[in-house]
Amino acid sequence: MLNIRIEKAPAPKLLPEADNPLIFGTIFTDHMFIMDYTEDNGWHDPRIIPYGPVPLEPSAMVFHYGQELFEGLKAYKAGDGRILLFRPELNAKRSNDTCERICIPTIPVPDYVQAVKELVAIDADWIPDRPGTSLYIRPFIIATDPFLGVRPSASYKFIIILSPVGAYYPEGLNPVKIWVEEEYVRAVRGGLGEAKAGANYVASLKAQIKAKEAGYSQVLWLDGIERKYVEEVGAMNIFFKINEEIITPALCGSILPGITRRSCIELCKLWGYDVSERQISADEIISAAKSGTLKEIWGTGTAAVISPVGLLKKGETEVEIGNGGIGELTQRLYDTLTGIQLGKIEAPADWVEVV
Amino acid sequence: MLNIRIEKAPAPKLLPEADNPLIFGTIFTDHMFIMDYTEDNGWHDPRIIPYGPVPLEPSAMVFHYGQELFEGLKAYKAGDGRILLFRPELNAKRSNDTCERICIPTIPVPDYVQAVKELVAIDADWIPDRPGTSLYIRPFIIATDPFLGVRPSASYKFIIILSPVGAYYPEGLNPVKIWVEEEYVRAVRGGLGEAKAGANYVASLKAQIKAKEAGYSQVLWLDGIERKYVEEVGAMNIFFKINEEIITPALCGSILPGITRRSCIELCKLWGYDVSERQISADEIISAAKSGTLKEIWGTGTAAVISPVGLLKKGETEVEIGNGGIGELTQRLYDTLTGIQLGKIEAPADWVEVV
Repeated sequence: MLNIRIEKAPAPKLLPEADNPLIFGTIFTDHMFIMDYTEDNGWHDPRIIPYGPVPLEPSAMVFHYGQELFEGLKAYKAGDGRILLFRPELNAKRSNDTCERICIPTIPVPDYVQAVKELVAIDADWIPDRPGTSLYIRPFIIATDPFLGVRPSASYKFIIILSPVGAYYPEGLNPVKIWVEEEYVRAVRGGLGEAKAGANYVASLKAQIKAKEAGYSQVLWLDGIERKYVEEVGAMNIFFKINEEIITPALCGSILPGITRRSCIELCKLWGYDVSERQISADEIISAAKSGTLKEIWGTGTAAVISPVGLLKKGETEVEIGNGGIGELTQRLYDTLTGIQLGKIEAPADWVEVV
Repeated sequence: MLNIRIEKAPAPKLLPEADNPLIFGTIFTDHMFIMDYTEDNGWHDPRIIPYGPVPLEPSAMVFHYGQELFEGLKAYKAGDGRILLFRPELNAKRSNDTCERICIPTIPVPDYVQAVKELVAIDADWIPDRPGTSLYIRPFIIATDPFLGVRPSASYKFIIILSPVGAYYPEGLNPVKIWVEEEYVRAVRGGLGEAKAGANYVASLKAQIKAKEAGYSQVLWLDGIERKYVEEVGAMNIFFKINEEIITPALCGSILPGITRRSCIELCKLWGYDVSERQISADEIISAAKSGTLKEIWGTGTAAVISPVGLLKKGETEVEIGNGGIGELTQRLYDTLTGIQLGKIEAPADWVEVV
């Protein structure tokens, strides 16, 4: 249990107007959580202080060697006024898995969740309640040693910031067009792909721009070894429904173990579907689309929750998925997950936590 | 040509004592260079100001998505008092190549070099002159948009800091023991391996610790696809002398195009050696060591210049290189490169620039 020191913002900012579109990731609340790590004191001095600049030495290792990780989760305002979090322990655990991979000291899961809850409670007025909105929570850890040289840092900051957000796609739940990337690779087995490290995101930028310029909104990543098997879509996990089988790439080391991914698998199994976590090649998907057995494709992630895919392009081949509309299961997963997150639908045990 | 604004430090710090060991990357000079980028103004407001913290929003993209790159070069004080830089244009060009790969706007090469020179000139008193010492120069670029979401930042800071350094290996030019890493991968073709991005360094930490714990000082990286071919050693390029052939892995997309690597190739060719840039497997190296044809192994990089390798371990096999001593060519390259850098040996055209 952390003993969190609290320093309130002397002059709270104005809350966004009711009709503010809350463009994702652009508005931040009055407070932030910070906790420091040093070798002598471990994680210490947990505090909630006014949101503001974090002064770091220009030699701070995070600026040079990329030793940084993040998580993303959301707080929702339920119709009855309760504030709900969706499976926050899973974020805390995944953060620790990333810590292990990139040599950062872990944080006890209960402490992590407590920090999230106390910060959300203090800035609860910032949680929007229009349909599709939520309070995005961004915990992250950065290496702060003022040192040039390649080794793990001996000091870190764990920071949590909050941002009221509208829908990730302002145009709403519309099918996106995706592009199978054959030149660039996001991650490879033995690398950082299964960690939520900044390194994976910078690696995705060039292909993302290439796809956008060609008129596609997301990149479908292939494995870095055979360049054949599907891994992720943009910064989301991906699912396919071929006949009645639900398929998602197995967690082979280069794929992020998404919490929405896991929740989708669990819901589909609950609903009686066969779910296969296995290798699936881009060619298998295109064949299934051509033969009419590919019924639906969707991406899963915290930011967008569920993203239907309407069109897939690989090389010169372009296939439409389910007539380009939103599949029945895709819609059911979206409605169920957002319903659970908003407290409208009863959740499986432990999926929802009240702040 | 930049018009660099200069704000001198009001109270210069004490210079390190003459017997200070100048542990690599721990001491910083009085000033730093900063230039900002915005979409409206491009790169602007170049300035040299007192060295100190850089305040950034906690939402600054560099903390989350790893969009950052760096370079490293050194300034030397020659016996005649001149201040010398070693091939700084190559750093500026490589920085721009990294920019292209990770979607950061480039900086004109003459502006980049000018910024380095003006900063070094202002802190010239900090250049140490004992044998093995130099002023390490660290230019880097970070993404500064206060934005959560995966896309290239629209604003950046280009910063240069300086650090007087002793030898990278305080124990001097001693052969190191290296460990062939078979579990973790640094980079893969299609990824960021050939860019000098922070992402590659965070990816190397876990294996580095594993090797250290086993008593080895560096990791020998294999390719991420076949896990067979040698790529780099630690954060250096690597060379092998088998009989009279000099071999270094070809720049296939996942290997950093080192400036010391390039200089070694050019010197060896000048001296009449056959230099092959080609694939070379760990097994080929071990066979050559066993048959006695492997004469020397050395790593190359700005920090250590030349690092002789005395022992190589792969799985259960351990082989000694050249009786564990420093090879003749390794020593000649070290002496020649450091001689050129210090102005004692005449350099090939354009290798040395006077500040």
